[in-house]
Amino acid sequence: MNRLCNLLEIEAPIIQAGMVWCSGWKLASASSNAGVLGVLGAGSMHPDVLDEHIKQTKQHTKKPFAVNLPLLYPEIDQHLDTILRNQVPVVITSAGNPKKHTSTLQKEGVKVIHVVSSVKFAQKAQEARVNAIVAEGFEAGGHNGRDETTTMVLIPAVADAVELPVIAAGGIRDGRGMLAALALGADGIQMGSRFVLSKESSAHQLFKSEIQKAEEGSTQLTLKELTPVRLLKNPFFQEIQKAYDQGANIDQLKALLGKGRAKKGMFLGNLEDGELEIGQVASYMNDLIPAKEIIQNTIQEYHSAINTVEKNTF
Amino acid sequence: MNRLCNLLEIEAPIIQAGMVWCSGWKLASASSNAGVLGVLGAGSMHPDVLDEHIKQTKQHTKKPFAVNLPLLYPEIDQHLDTILRNQVPVVITSAGNPKKHTSTLQKEGVKVIHVVSSVKFAQKAQEARVNAIVAEGFEAGGHNGRDETTTMVLIPAVADAVELPVIAAGGIRDGRGMLAALALGADGIQMGSRFVLSKESSAHQLFKSEIQKAEEGSTQLTLKELTPVRLLKNPFFQEIQKAYDQGANIDQLKALLGKGRAKKGMFLGNLEDGELEIGQVASYMNDLIPAKEIIQNTIQEYHSAINTVEKNTF
Repeated sequence: MNRLCNLLEIEAPIIQAGMVWCSGWKLASASSNAGVLGVLGAGSMHPDVLDEHIKQTKQHTKKPFAVNLPLLYPEIDQHLDTILRNQVPVVITSAGNPKKHTSTLQKEGVKVIHVVSSVKFAQKAQEARVNAIVAEGFEAGGHNGRDETTTMVLIPAVADAVELPVIAAGGIRDGRGMLAALALGADGIQMGSRFVLSKESSAHQLFKSEIQKAEEGSTQLTLKELTPVRLLKNPFFQEIQKAYDQGANIDQLKALLGKGRAKKGMFLGNLEDGELEIGQVASYMNDLIPAKEIIQNTIQEYHSAINTVEKNTF
Repeated sequence: MNRLCNLLEIEAPIIQAGMVWCSGWKLASASSNAGVLGVLGAGSMHPDVLDEHIKQTKQHTKKPFAVNLPLLYPEIDQHLDTILRNQVPVVITSAGNPKKHTSTLQKEGVKVIHVVSSVKFAQKAQEARVNAIVAEGFEAGGHNGRDETTTMVLIPAVADAVELPVIAAGGIRDGRGMLAALALGADGIQMGSRFVLSKESSAHQLFKSEIQKAEEGSTQLTLKELTPVRLLKNPFFQEIQKAYDQGANIDQLKALLGKGRAKKGMFLGNLEDGELEIGQVASYMNDLIPAKEIIQNTIQEYHSAINTVEKNTF
């Protein structure tokens, strides 16, 4: 009996991460149909776009799905309204204080999961009475915690500190990682980067190709003075490094980043000037396959990893 | 059947890491006597000191033990001579090219394990015909790889790339971490920081107390331009950060580091001016216990983690 499956009414305790510019209704509905939790990334959607993606998701799956909602998003109230109006079953909140909206959502029957990067934030989320926690390590793509705590270190500490179901995120790309996460004390996993490299992800084809070509050490956490973010080391990343070398201050970094960099890189495929957010696992993935296959493979590998461990006994 | 246990003739596939200033004969013999591989850290020993520690280890245990040998060490030839003269059964090499000394050691019956931080270096170690590989992630204490790849990401990639037994290191402090490592494809684990906080470690009592007091985010990887090293954020660490803020170049960083900082901090207990090398797990450990208890706990937790995973089935 897995309590995350029970809570979310899914078959396998896997969440397909909601990611800016990569996870629209095609990916979310494909994931949900394959028995896990599909998630829409609202951080890159205006309210009317989110509304359309929710409606499409509902048309393409009868199973539960979620919306990922960065709480610092400027159009947050309209997003909340859109979510409630469409009776979205689960919301995954991130980047902000979960206290403010959790009870509003739960009163309307929405389950709330909050993303954290430390024990301290996990405890705060528990105090805010969320239903579950995603604990995300340093190796994850995109925005990231300031302490740089890795998944291996973070998960047992969070599992010891809270009673709630814990979902491990960061550095997981297959069933071996899934078993590792559950061994560390998690109830389930969230995979992001692995689903960016799926047929259904809305990442630009050129971005997907860059992920396939990524070598060891091809990603790095940067812009720690603003919001830490893990990026592929493309020309824009090199520009940031050059700014650091020249002693850039926070305002200069903000000016360099500007607006719309993630859309430019991940959605429009501008590999030179865009931000390409992806996790460390990008260095070790090549196969661009349907979400369903990613999920089936992960579950199968999970079970064979259990067999491997049993054979390795001492 | 565990092939690492077979190779090293130990009961549980655990290596107590050889660490500068922390792992002398007391820790190594206690670890070996408890059924795992105890390791002397030769990186902080002159040849006559190493000789004495090997002799003491042999007097206090009849079981296999190892010496950790940083290959860039200036007195390397005398160390190799000391190791061969004393018939040390296993050598763990790090920080250098394993090609040079592996066959010399193996011809004399010594098993050679090499420490790597990437798939590329793992493959090179395999080409050098070492007997096993330690793959160490970003969360580990002390000196560290340039790619910043975490244990969660590194282990499956290394396990896929080489045939040799793989030992996971970095971020492991209990049996949950051990099961995670084996799930990821490792054959065994190496724990360092966990053994720094043991009764038998030669770390200064004040350093041990600092580890017990460490909070979340208390360690950071720094001095990446020299040799990356993970340190507790003490006043010396803050001095480094200040130097960075003022745009210090490599020569200035080298001058600031100077010589003998690790001894000063870890062995002599100078918490202000010394280097305090420790892994991210320092934030989540408090109990200063005998090595034997660490090992027994880890094995017990490993088996109960298997039970937890089985109960979590879906």
